[in-house]
Amino acid sequence: MRPNNRPINQTRPVTITRNYTRYAEGSVLIEFGETKVLCNATVEENVPRFLKGQQQGWVTAEYGMLPRATHSRTQREAAKGKQGGRTMEIQRLIARSLRAIVDLKALGERTITVDCDVIQADGGTRTASITGACVALHDAINKLMADGVLKQNPLKGLVAAISVGIVDGEAVCDLEYIEDSNAETDMNVVMVEDGRLVEVQGTAEGEPFSHSELLTLLDLAGQGIQQLVEAQRKALSE
Amino acid sequence: MRPNNRPINQTRPVTITRNYTRYAEGSVLIEFGETKVLCNATVEENVPRFLKGQQQGWVTAEYGMLPRATHSRTQREAAKGKQGGRTMEIQRLIARSLRAIVDLKALGERTITVDCDVIQADGGTRTASITGACVALHDAINKLMADGVLKQNPLKGLVAAISVGIVDGEAVCDLEYIEDSNAETDMNVVMVEDGRLVEVQGTAEGEPFSHSELLTLLDLAGQGIQQLVEAQRKALSE
Amino acid sequence: MRPNNRPINQTRPVTITRNYTRYAEGSVLIEFGETKVLCNATVEENVPRFLKGQQQGWVTAEYGMLPRATHSRTQREAAKGKQGGRTMEIQRLIARSLRAIVDLKALGERTITVDCDVIQADGGTRTASITGACVALHDAINKLMADGVLKQNPLKGLVAAISVGIVDGEAVCDLEYIEDSNAETDMNVVMVEDGRLVEVQGTAEGEPFSHSELLTLLDLAGQGIQQLVEAQRKALSE
Amino acid sequence: MRPNNRPINQTRPVTITRNYTRYAEGSVLIEFGETKVLCNATVEENVPRFLKGQQQGWVTAEYGMLPRATHSRTQREAAKGKQGGRTMEIQRLIARSLRAIVDLKALGERTITVDCDVIQADGGTRTASITGACVALHDAINKLMADGVLKQNPLKGLVAAISVGIVDGEAVCDLEYIEDSNAETDMNVVMVEDGRLVEVQGTAEGEPFSHSELLTLLDLAGQGIQQLVEAQRKALSE
Amino acid sequence: MRPNNRPINQTRPVTITRNYTRYAEGSVLIEFGETKVLCNATVEENVPRFLKGQQQGWVTAEYGMLPRATHSRTQREAAKGKQGGRTMEIQRLIARSLRAIVDLKALGERTITVDCDVIQADGGTRTASITGACVALHDAINKLMADGVLKQNPLKGLVAAISVGIVDGEAVCDLEYIEDSNAETDMNVVMVEDGRLVEVQGTAEGEPFSHSELLTLLDLAGQGIQQLVEAQRKALSE
Amino acid sequence: MRPNNRPINQTRPVTITRNYTRYAEGSVLIEFGETKVLCNATVEENVPRFLKGQQQGWVTAEYGMLPRATHSRTQREAAKGKQGGRTMEIQRLIARSLRAIVDLKALGERTITVDCDVIQADGGTRTASITGACVALHDAINKLMADGVLKQNPLKGLVAAISVGIVDGEAVCDLEYIEDSNAETDMNVVMVEDGRLVEVQGTAEGEPFSHSELLTLLDLAGQGIQQLVEAQRKALSE
Repeated sequence: MRPNNRPINQTRPVTITRNYTRYAEGSVLIEFGETKVLCNATVEENVPRFLKGQQQGWVTAEYGMLPRATHSRTQREAAKGKQGGRTMEIQRLIARSLRAIVDLKALGERTITVDCDVIQADGGTRTASITGACVALHDAINKLMADGVLKQNPLKGLVAAISVGIVDGEAVCDLEYIEDSNAETDMNVVMVEDGRLVEVQGTAEGEPFSHSELLTLLDLAGQGIQQLVEAQRKALSE
Repeated sequence: MRPNNRPINQTRPVTITRNYTRYAEGSVLIEFGETKVLCNATVEENVPRFLKGQQQGWVTAEYGMLPRATHSRTQREAAKGKQGGRTMEIQRLIARSLRAIVDLKALGERTITVDCDVIQADGGTRTASITGACVALHDAINKLMADGVLKQNPLKGLVAAISVGIVDGEAVCDLEYIEDSNAETDMNVVMVEDGRLVEVQGTAEGEPFSHSELLTLLDLAGQGIQQLVEAQRKALSE
Repeated sequence: MRPNNRPINQTRPVTITRNYTRYAEGSVLIEFGETKVLCNATVEENVPRFLKGQQQGWVTAEYGMLPRATHSRTQREAAKGKQGGRTMEIQRLIARSLRAIVDLKALGERTITVDCDVIQADGGTRTASITGACVALHDAINKLMADGVLKQNPLKGLVAAISVGIVDGEAVCDLEYIEDSNAETDMNVVMVEDGRLVEVQGTAEGEPFSHSELLTLLDLAGQGIQQLVEAQRKALSE
Repeated sequence: MRPNNRPINQTRPVTITRNYTRYAEGSVLIEFGETKVLCNATVEENVPRFLKGQQQGWVTAEYGMLPRATHSRTQREAAKGKQGGRTMEIQRLIARSLRAIVDLKALGERTITVDCDVIQADGGTRTASITGACVALHDAINKLMADGVLKQNPLKGLVAAISVGIVDGEAVCDLEYIEDSNAETDMNVVMVEDGRLVEVQGTAEGEPFSHSELLTLLDLAGQGIQQLVEAQRKALSE
Repeated sequence: MRPNNRPINQTRPVTITRNYTRYAEGSVLIEFGETKVLCNATVEENVPRFLKGQQQGWVTAEYGMLPRATHSRTQREAAKGKQGGRTMEIQRLIARSLRAIVDLKALGERTITVDCDVIQADGGTRTASITGACVALHDAINKLMADGVLKQNPLKGLVAAISVGIVDGEAVCDLEYIEDSNAETDMNVVMVEDGRLVEVQGTAEGEPFSHSELLTLLDLAGQGIQQLVEAQRKALSE
Repeated sequence: MRPNNRPINQTRPVTITRNYTRYAEGSVLIEFGETKVLCNATVEENVPRFLKGQQQGWVTAEYGMLPRATHSRTQREAAKGKQGGRTMEIQRLIARSLRAIVDLKALGERTITVDCDVIQADGGTRTASITGACVALHDAINKLMADGVLKQNPLKGLVAAISVGIVDGEAVCDLEYIEDSNAETDMNVVMVEDGRLVEVQGTAEGEPFSHSELLTLLDLAGQGIQQLVEAQRKALSE
């Protein structure tokens, strides 16, 4: 049995709170069960050097974890003087996922940075980050539309992410920490709302996994993503 | 008139939420009006190298600010690769303030680290950090007492901090950002509950200030600290 | 047509040169067409701190690129003072892939580090690294067996990696740089020799990709991996 | 009794040597007893980025300690690769203190940096730095006046700093190291020559201190500052 | 006897392979016996900031060593986060040596960077680097001439470098590792083809050396350099 | 004519002040004309990790330059976060030079670190550093002898260093800055008191130099070193 008798194809309760802080153009607290991530989108009227003069915008992301978001304290990256490999990998993934739903030409020469800071971690911080960052990005772009800065909406839809994995021989979706740390195979799937794939990152933690296990996991991921997109739609309609 | 017609000797509404996150031995969200700081206390069963074998404990603190806690986005210190001077100054101040209420011998050979992470900044982040960290520290130590790890309580009481300053020629307490950025003189005062002083840090932003202005500010600080200590007591009694 | 009229399911010519340098316990130069990576395996008689006393070994990897492995010069990471996110992501992937074929308990309390340094890059440096590192790892472990240091062989078989992608609407395997930079979807697949999956990392560079495109890509990857495993076997038998 | 039978309200012998090195626009060696700090003021014809185009100048400071300025050798910050929290705190304090006596608009778009390097430390290095830096700053600005670069003098007067503290229950001024390390309360006070306050930084090292102790310390500080200002005036008149 | 019965005034077999990699404007693999260094010259159409607008070019160099170029693995400098003193010293030496044969005015406002990366180290990596970098530089500049970018050849000739030393009381040239690690005196000599000196760096590893020993070493160096210049000429004529 | 009509074979006035600061075991201010370097020797009762358990000591050095030791301000290395290549090169040279006069076995398992900090630079800072560091090292070791910590004196004699160069076609010794910046050839020579060589580092700044020029420079260096050794002897006998 999964914790809380959760069915294998069901995500944890998802809560999306918009306008969580005052200053960001988009500010979302997303909760996947006990995992809580604050996603703040910032609009800046310039682009990174490598895009200067190319009449397009940029969407990027940064990821961080508060030192005591975890069971035991993790050393602060600012104090260590560098971001670790895991942090870099995750923030690159979030950024690519967000760019999948933005027409960068239509965004114009501006940058949107989404900061995803984990307040509390119980598995799935990167998938919660992507799912919440999508809503923060929508809010930030809707603000640019409402302010008349943008005439044409650069958004192509919604993007969400979910983890799936094989735990004790069974495929389950949206793993919490206790499941994640026992998973034989762990896969993060990023999809747009019509079910097409943006990213698939599957890793065999122990034994390699078979083609059919992969298909089972992808199917579960699709079911989970629909629940997440539903939550995003509901939040954005409020 | 102050914003919201606040009297000069009155703090902003103070909210102290205990057990804000799950894992920390003490976890407090403190709000001074729109300033929100998460204070997480972690107990670790070792001491820094310079205290090894001296049969005493240590209390330290780290401070951070989420990139979009501020009106415009501040660069992430982890991405810059170092903590700035302001961050270091503040976290040293928080740590000294907390050590003022702990008998380090009685704490035994363990370290308590309080992480103060600013979720939203509207002036007074260092004073809110100290005031909230005090409560998180109490919770962490009470847990050590309840668990029987400590027989004797190393806590000596409460410590709180407040900013006072001269704005438009008038002395006021607990400055919010709009006041802080216009203050001629800015002073942070840390006191224990009986009104004795732990730290006084006063700075003339423009013209130097007189001895009598200093006395006025100290008096206001004392009034504000009493309100904060009241809020701490109320929170700890719940 | 692909460059050099290569069929879509065929890898570039693969060359594996063992004993490429003198000192490493395993030293392999692997070439996927014009991509050339030197993979050196080093055995050290200790384990990282987090594994001390756990009676198991460790396999890790580092990845680097010579500044002029690329069309235009890339800044040297040692001079910049830090490894970039792409480097960290790749070396973490290589290391996980190698651990999939090693019984770490059977390895004993020692560490094997495989350095993958790209001499020349023409697409697929991470997949060439994994495929070459596997052979270097075999040589290093075979040496431990031959020297009598290990009684039981900790190796479980071969692991190889290939990139597949959709270029101009067509799925192809083992992309070279000119294809890679035009790919709509790019996927790196790591498999053990029996075809089971160790890692799948697929990214939509432009439009999201469909479930059926994913299946096509996985099928192509399987065909490519068989050619790589064949080349590994041939090299190891010489 | 204090070391050398020094009265409680008397500073150590103060020596101010101007033109100590050849190249700096202002170069002062200041000695507070055995504490020796070299203060070199440099004028540069530009301003930091955040002040560009605002028609004002800037005054800043850097602080350093030679490795063997102290009883046992302190690790060189350049070798460690970063400046510590104490260094940052002190150089920020020096800079704020100097800006209190300069009309930055009148300075024009130029920057004066005062480097305070401790040759030998016996307590009070930050107060000696401020007191000496003030003289170096005067020399640098007088040179700009003499050279006709500045028409109007941006200097508003003199600033000096002193430490006061409670040692063995008695309030004393200008603590040397042996006193400083035993102080129950330690306060650094920065004043302009008419006795108004620029900075007050008081810290309870052990027990918190009372309001009346604070007043006693401030009074002592005022007496010490007058002696320092006297020494500054004398040096500048030579 | 020297290893392989090599006469004292003879270099190890020298192999110079041009066009070793595809992208660099000059790409040379140089081998001094078992020491192998890849020297890649890159032309960029800009100059460092300190030369902007001075109508001259710049020649610089970077040096690196693959982690397993050595008997036991050396930590990767990119992972350590900084280049060591030895690396810096060597790359500064290479750069100065190369500038000795280039008329920087005639080069125009462009920079040539030669990356010297040691694939395998058996003593003499810095001398092999200089000798190989000279050939890579020639190739890069010949390409600029052939492409019509340069009308006038900025090259003044060839430069080469050799190590000489006193081993077991006997002066020998081009020390391999086993000799180098036992040398009493070690000297690196950089000469242009007519025998004049560009750099002399001699170090007594044990006892100081006499004037006459210095002369003996310089004479041997001259003989070795002639062999290296011969190898350079032969390679460039192919 | 040289500045101040100085003969070509004569050093600038050399002043050696012992016991310049209070705490260091050896503390020397050395002046070569306007070049002033503070050399502080520190004795510590441990050895670096690579020497642990080998029953020998170590002598090392660090070099730094105060930001305004130079005509225009040089950025502080502690603020930049790393030591530059020139600094590393110089401190490695100083350390090797000092080790030439110490029997490390006789020193026992302790480390002597000599910090050479340039107060004012007018050419020859590295040669002044070595010459002064030698005296500081003697003082530190003499103290160990006087304290009975060492029974046998590990010192083998004196070491000194001088720069020689070709300026306007003429060979001169002990170049000051104005000469150094115009030198065609620049050579630093480190000798022990009997005239044998410890280090020779000659660099052609413009045209390569001939064998006979080298001999002339070495001869001049020998004359200069005798004057420096004389000054060292005189200082040590006071």
